Amino acid sequence: MRAAAPRNTREVDRFDLETDVAVVGFGSAGACAAIEAAKAGARTLVLERGWRGGGTSAESTGQIYMGGGTPLQKACGFEDDPDEMHKYLMASCGPGADEAKVRLYSDSSVEHYHWLTGHGIPFDMGFVDYQVSTMPEPGKSLSYTGSERAWPYRDIAVPAPRGHTVQNASGEVMMQVLTKAAQDAGASVQTGARSETLVVDDDGRVVGLVARVGDTEQVVRARRGVVITTGGFVHNEDMMRWYAPDLLRCGRPIAAEGGDDGAGIRMGIGAGGAAIRMDAACIVLGFAYGNRKNIRGILVNSCGQRYVNEDVYQSNHGEIALKKQDGQVYLIVDDSIYEPVPTGVDEELFSLPVAAVANTGEELEREIGMPKNSLSHTLAVYNEYAARGEDPHFHKERCWLQALDKPPLAAIDLRVENTPYSLFTLGGLRTRPTGEVLDTDGAPVAGLWAAGRSASGIPAQGYNSGLSLADCTFSGRMAGVSVAGTSN
Amino acid sequence: MRAAAPRNTREVDRFDLETDVAVVGFGSAGACAAIEAAKAGARTLVLERGWRGGGTSAESTGQIYMGGGTPLQKACGFEDDPDEMHKYLMASCGPGADEAKVRLYSDSSVEHYHWLTGHGIPFDMGFVDYQVSTMPEPGKSLSYTGSERAWPYRDIAVPAPRGHTVQNASGEVMMQVLTKAAQDAGASVQTGARSETLVVDDDGRVVGLVARVGDTEQVVRARRGVVITTGGFVHNEDMMRWYAPDLLRCGRPIAAEGGDDGAGIRMGIGAGGAAIRMDAACIVLGFAYGNRKNIRGILVNSCGQRYVNEDVYQSNHGEIALKKQDGQVYLIVDDSIYEPVPTGVDEELFSLPVAAVANTGEELEREIGMPKNSLSHTLAVYNEYAARGEDPHFHKERCWLQALDKPPLAAIDLRVENTPYSLFTLGGLRTRPTGEVLDTDGAPVAGLWAAGRSASGIPAQGYNSGLSLADCTFSGRMAGVSVAGTSN
Repeated sequence: MRAAAPRNTREVDRFDLETDVAVVGFGSAGACAAIEAAKAGARTLVLERGWRGGGTSAESTGQIYMGGGTPLQKACGFEDDPDEMHKYLMASCGPGADEAKVRLYSDSSVEHYHWLTGHGIPFDMGFVDYQVSTMPEPGKSLSYTGSERAWPYRDIAVPAPRGHTVQNASGEVMMQVLTKAAQDAGASVQTGARSETLVVDDDGRVVGLVARVGDTEQVVRARRGVVITTGGFVHNEDMMRWYAPDLLRCGRPIAAEGGDDGAGIRMGIGAGGAAIRMDAACIVLGFAYGNRKNIRGILVNSCGQRYVNEDVYQSNHGEIALKKQDGQVYLIVDDSIYEPVPTGVDEELFSLPVAAVANTGEELEREIGMPKNSLSHTLAVYNEYAARGEDPHFHKERCWLQALDKPPLAAIDLRVENTPYSLFTLGGLRTRPTGEVLDTDGAPVAGLWAAGRSASGIPAQGYNSGLSLADCTFSGRMAGVSVAGTSN
Repeated sequence: MRAAAPRNTREVDRFDLETDVAVVGFGSAGACAAIEAAKAGARTLVLERGWRGGGTSAESTGQIYMGGGTPLQKACGFEDDPDEMHKYLMASCGPGADEAKVRLYSDSSVEHYHWLTGHGIPFDMGFVDYQVSTMPEPGKSLSYTGSERAWPYRDIAVPAPRGHTVQNASGEVMMQVLTKAAQDAGASVQTGARSETLVVDDDGRVVGLVARVGDTEQVVRARRGVVITTGGFVHNEDMMRWYAPDLLRCGRPIAAEGGDDGAGIRMGIGAGGAAIRMDAACIVLGFAYGNRKNIRGILVNSCGQRYVNEDVYQSNHGEIALKKQDGQVYLIVDDSIYEPVPTGVDEELFSLPVAAVANTGEELEREIGMPKNSLSHTLAVYNEYAARGEDPHFHKERCWLQALDKPPLAAIDLRVENTPYSLFTLGGLRTRPTGEVLDTDGAPVAGLWAAGRSASGIPAQGYNSGLSLADCTFSGRMAGVSVAGTSN
């Protein structure tokens, strides 16, 4: 498919369909854009290439990052504040976090919670014990899904749990609610419609798009504008190679089958949109999902050095390990921590290979092939401090500190070749908080909006679980409101 | 200036000038493109916004990375081979090095040497002792300007010095030769002409450009094509913030005044070109330029850990320190190494601040605020091995190994806030080895070529000194040949 080059109106002899707003893609961003556009009175058409909506959002666990004092946070006894949320997101979504987007979302997050629940998204009013899990449990939707309590973030902003997981961790239910809400609001949905390229007029304004429905080409006129919400590009190997080749080492794309192939981003680029931060990704190294006690172990690189506090969130560990340690890292645990089979999670996803087992640090470093007096020194120093409840090197929170002194010791193999890192892309079209797509000079591309992972959004670089759905749903809404308010 | 949006031919009521080939920019890439295009019989017009040509190339030290068995390498007694050069460049210019470009250049490098010397670029037939300097000396043009001898590269490809520095390290002389050669070949040069945007026809083909000469707008028709050679974007703070915000921490852009503002890249994007690897940069942390003995010291991070073999080349150290160690690094030396004032180099550029001085590792770590038993342990282990000529952790070459046991010890402050890292950008338009600009689908943008730092070239990510001038001159030539051979 050639998505980049737009079609000029002079090459279009007819429009098969006319609408005010065309939304490309029917994942969470597309659904929320359609809801808002239709509610604002715009005739809205959603084009989805699958046989139904949902996209990658429907396959997710339905975690949505919200805060600032939501009813769920309050019900669980947590205080939160938009300013603290803003400070945390600016620190954890950088470098180069988009301050305008972070500010708007931090200030609007409580309203967004009400908007979602008002449409029927269900949350359970309970909190998951941080030391037990970051995943939701029956009856408990609230959990820590970021590094709020971890150094250095806890010194930057007052920690609060902000992961709001849809009941039963069902992204599927969430998308059923949102796609139905879009249709209830009056949006038309055409499934099996693959958008192929944008249509632009002589002034460069986006006035519609070309979609393929079966063997038929359908030219759609969108009087107010087109909203691109087709996700990221983790399934497009060419784009990965050109924009972010190091990410190809990660083994496990997070994306719906056939989705996230970068089509929308390329269409947007073709119409003049700038694509930014195309190197950025959420890279999850979930070494503690299956066994939360693993955080009591130590992460070391190929020289046996610790390099991070192990209690930073799982979605940061992949990026740190891959980009800063060349993906060559191990988790060292003792017998009090080790669990051969993870409990309560998908075994295939969360089993971790063991590189070596030994009774002492000296033996273990020899087994793995680390230099003498490397890992063993790290262990000795760590144990000495941990026994006193201290971690002067990386400031892991006290609740995770224990000396690793119950042999045997195990080195769990977290090298990227042996433990696939999970991955989706964060780079995309540059947009205003309204979703208007900007060109390389910073001027809007008339008639074009983008939302969700087709845009560079709130998680510009760093990631916390739930931020992508938060950004998809919220930026979708903003784009829907903005495009509907455009005079046609 | 709005460079991104091209002008359509329908908005152009006249062409003020007609040429076969228009070259935008008259640095080394532009000059070499103009030479080849004019020699191939194309009417060639160079538009340079400065009052004369030269650009950033004229301000450089004239290092050109060449190999595969050049006359200078042979005269100095070094064997080299295009395959070894290819292997080295693939390893050091990645991840994601452009194999087609690296292959072509490795195979063509000897020819390129003859081309340059044939036009009058002077080299001195001597070799600079690797342990003394990587900078040229009077009478000696050949030096190691990369990590060829450093681990792991020495195990990947047979090392050879490939830095060919123009006589007297004069980028100025080099550019005098090349700009004169372009004019001798028949190219017309218009200085003081600021190219503002491209002109495209209804098919999206680039057919010319709009330049501003004083207060006058001049529309140029380029029958065969336009070659963009305006350099990178290190001087464009907006682009830096959007594409590569972490690089804004580096204090010292390497660019001619008023140059490298990304104008050409933005013009190319506006015409449909894809901009790739926009996060990539050459980041020089030149801690050993002023005192080569500093390589005998050890580089440590804020936890007192070594993180790299100190003999990798200066232009890699900046990237490693900034991106992997958050720019928080120190060089630890003893009294046998330390020199307060660097010799033979610009003092302002190469003086390094001292963070602390102490008689023992324990004192030093306390002075800097590192945890107890951190740097002191690193020093003890390093010294023990170094005394035996070994470095099992990072494999520094034996010639640099010595125990740091002559007190006092000093911690030289290489934190990015205190020692500016030098920087230029490596990301740019995606091109074929011919210089043809490609869109996001991989299809050529008709009528458009790019070369030098406006394109993503041989140094896609990693860097060795001399690679940018090598790439600028060679990719300029390829673009000139290719555009001239296009039927108009």
